[in-house]
Amino acid sequence: MLNKAVAEYLRANRPGHVEKLLELLRFASTANNPGACRRCAQWLADYLGELGLSSQVMPTGGKDAVYAASSADPAKPTVLIYGHYDVQPPDPLAEWKSKPFQPVIRDGNIYARGASDDKGQMFAHLMAMEAWARGGGELPVNVKVLIEGEEEVGSPSFEPFVAEHGELLACDAAVISDSAFFAPALPSLLTGLRGLAYVEVTFTGPKADAHSGTYGGLLTNPINALAKLVGALHDADGRVTIPGFYDDVVTIDEAQRRQWAALPFDEAEHAASMGVGALGGGEHGYGPLERCWARPTLDCNGMVGGYTDLGAKTIIPARATAKISMRLVAHQKPAKIVASFRQFVAEHTPPGIRGCLEEHSTARPVLLKADGPAMAAARAALRAAFGAEPVLIGCGASVPVTELIQRLLGVDPAMMGFGLPDDRHHSPNEKFALEHLYKGAEASAMFLDELAARADQLRVAGGA
Amino acid sequence: MLNKAVAEYLRANRPGHVEKLLELLRFASTANNPGACRRCAQWLADYLGELGLSSQVMPTGGKDAVYAASSADPAKPTVLIYGHYDVQPPDPLAEWKSKPFQPVIRDGNIYARGASDDKGQMFAHLMAMEAWARGGGELPVNVKVLIEGEEEVGSPSFEPFVAEHGELLACDAAVISDSAFFAPALPSLLTGLRGLAYVEVTFTGPKADAHSGTYGGLLTNPINALAKLVGALHDADGRVTIPGFYDDVVTIDEAQRRQWAALPFDEAEHAASMGVGALGGGEHGYGPLERCWARPTLDCNGMVGGYTDLGAKTIIPARATAKISMRLVAHQKPAKIVASFRQFVAEHTPPGIRGCLEEHSTARPVLLKADGPAMAAARAALRAAFGAEPVLIGCGASVPVTELIQRLLGVDPAMMGFGLPDDRHHSPNEKFALEHLYKGAEASAMFLDELAARADQLRVAGGA
Repeated sequence: MLNKAVAEYLRANRPGHVEKLLELLRFASTANNPGACRRCAQWLADYLGELGLSSQVMPTGGKDAVYAASSADPAKPTVLIYGHYDVQPPDPLAEWKSKPFQPVIRDGNIYARGASDDKGQMFAHLMAMEAWARGGGELPVNVKVLIEGEEEVGSPSFEPFVAEHGELLACDAAVISDSAFFAPALPSLLTGLRGLAYVEVTFTGPKADAHSGTYGGLLTNPINALAKLVGALHDADGRVTIPGFYDDVVTIDEAQRRQWAALPFDEAEHAASMGVGALGGGEHGYGPLERCWARPTLDCNGMVGGYTDLGAKTIIPARATAKISMRLVAHQKPAKIVASFRQFVAEHTPPGIRGCLEEHSTARPVLLKADGPAMAAARAALRAAFGAEPVLIGCGASVPVTELIQRLLGVDPAMMGFGLPDDRHHSPNEKFALEHLYKGAEASAMFLDELAARADQLRVAGGA
Repeated sequence: MLNKAVAEYLRANRPGHVEKLLELLRFASTANNPGACRRCAQWLADYLGELGLSSQVMPTGGKDAVYAASSADPAKPTVLIYGHYDVQPPDPLAEWKSKPFQPVIRDGNIYARGASDDKGQMFAHLMAMEAWARGGGELPVNVKVLIEGEEEVGSPSFEPFVAEHGELLACDAAVISDSAFFAPALPSLLTGLRGLAYVEVTFTGPKADAHSGTYGGLLTNPINALAKLVGALHDADGRVTIPGFYDDVVTIDEAQRRQWAALPFDEAEHAASMGVGALGGGEHGYGPLERCWARPTLDCNGMVGGYTDLGAKTIIPARATAKISMRLVAHQKPAKIVASFRQFVAEHTPPGIRGCLEEHSTARPVLLKADGPAMAAARAALRAAFGAEPVLIGCGASVPVTELIQRLLGVDPAMMGFGLPDDRHHSPNEKFALEHLYKGAEASAMFLDELAARADQLRVAGGA
């Protein structure tokens, strides 16, 4: 049950909070707009300062981060609240009904780029902190706020940043709200995210494009050879054939399998919503959610070679390239997977072709303990705020900071998403429901209280 | 021995002829530039008119053709001289040392797209006709000139055009100069050309690019699926796996095998000249010239799907496309091959993907008689002009009109190429040696004279 004064503060201050969030959404803080990112980070630091926290803009190897902390009471546990202020590019612009950086409210939703991913979800936590500090008298726990500026480009500067500032960021619990409910009215907690290994393979053949009549039967064709390699990466059952690929994969346990199978997921409806006749991806013998959340996958994200304009051109091209990403699950190791892939490429490079593998990026998969105190606090908070029992779900994508917090700070963050599945993250007309902003702030306020109630467990479970 | 006045005329007019050829090469007469094609055709019609022929630009179903004829003397045999003014697209542009449509002369070569394929080779015949008409007094045979504008896209409009204009094009002999010497100083006559079946396969998946984290394991990936199909088109021995593909292939006879084996072909040197370590294309168990001239092949000429710019993007793309051409040999039937391919695509389209096969063009393979009078005239002319005995060779490429002239006009054209093997047809820095332009014109002039000397044999062998 939420502290009455805090609840009343939140209710009374809704219009002012929405105004502030709209201000935050007006910064076009995309990766290619460093000026807007700088102004947005400064705005956040100022705002956190106004809330009574000591705040600062901190340099990283890339875009600035924002850090703020309440005055520390050694009797209270410390929670790290993570969010990110950077947003995806808004294109295709023509498909937006209102301008992406001029937020508007329609039908109970705020429409803007970043409304749900992640400015709105992050802002719910700031509202809760304010309500505790001003309405409730004081924060029930020590709070550290860390707001990143590079999440949408894979957090390239964040591993050294977190490693360097381990003491500053030390905490007993952490929370990340950068995800969504599994379905409307079904609050959800993430227990795992997949990792990533992204490579690019280039096959080089003749020194220049050659006539396919004159040379067809003489030259090894780089596209045909690369297609044969890519085609060989999956067997007939949809399994990845890279030797050792599945060696470190954690088997899905029966309880989890049953729990996921009980989630409201209509395969035919899902396929139709994507415009396909069937969900044919992944390994045979697994359900769709298992394939997406608990099994590794391999997808070619782009491939090009030869003549690709309109009409026909009869050439054997000089080269062909494929961008290939693998989504990894616990406890696959990206470096080991990339090494196996490199060996696979060497073994599938035929005479007349030179093969080359470039590594783009990697991120480790993460599995979160479902029974820790922060998770229990988040579950209680979501249940109380949204009036439904939260479900435990996986996530096929990566949020690199999750694994960094677990590995470098030693706590399993609670992945408590306030978004809805149709919030259109990364797409035109992104939105965030006002109701989810308000209830998200209530959930965050309760989460802090629930953490305080679990201080003893936290001291045992977390901490660096 | 070439008529002295004709030889002197050719020698005296070299600079003017080169100037004219450079003018012709400045037209960017690629398939996707109809304006340049129109202007190029008109330029040719005007030029042929200036030479005293009755000339006209003739509509076809596609790009215009140019037709011209000398005044017909019923006492003389009639020869059809074929050429084409359209050229391959010049890309990749960055690899050209000089601009493809701003011809330059370097080290005795003309560099330009179309220099050798086919504007330069065709122009040698126009020089010869001019030399006979102005230097020699009159042409030794009746001449019909037919210049096509769609050879590089497989002559899609030419079969109905030739069929419709059978009377206009009727002839006793024909010559096509759109090929190359087997080696420097080794003039060559072609006795066969491969045919073509060019198709494009498109695999369509989700209605828009989808997040490869969220959907990896759910959606069938169109690139992976298409790569699997393309990879499956060849077995481990380099044989094409389309059912029935080899059913109608003529077996290479032992005499031909021996003749080709005697040609000066150094496999390692050939590979090195193309910048590859080995000639790995084609079927195992056949020599390189057999694989290229007498065996059918399949090459992917272009493939594209998903994100192909710099860096990484994590998407499952909405579609992927592959352009695939097959070089066919006697007596494969293009329509039958395309039908088998269509069936193959249907059988290799997985759930979650819609497959589509578009047919770009087809050309039948052709085998030419090695002992006809036009072939004898060409052999004598090449020997005299270039000072070496011509060899009989095959050709891996297609010149669709060859088969049309054979089938619809009833004569086996002499395939008398003036190019060199390193002229880089279809590639950046295409060139044509000035010496081959001059000697090609002499060979053409002698060819007309040698045909006149064989008037009686021609009347028996050729004619519709």
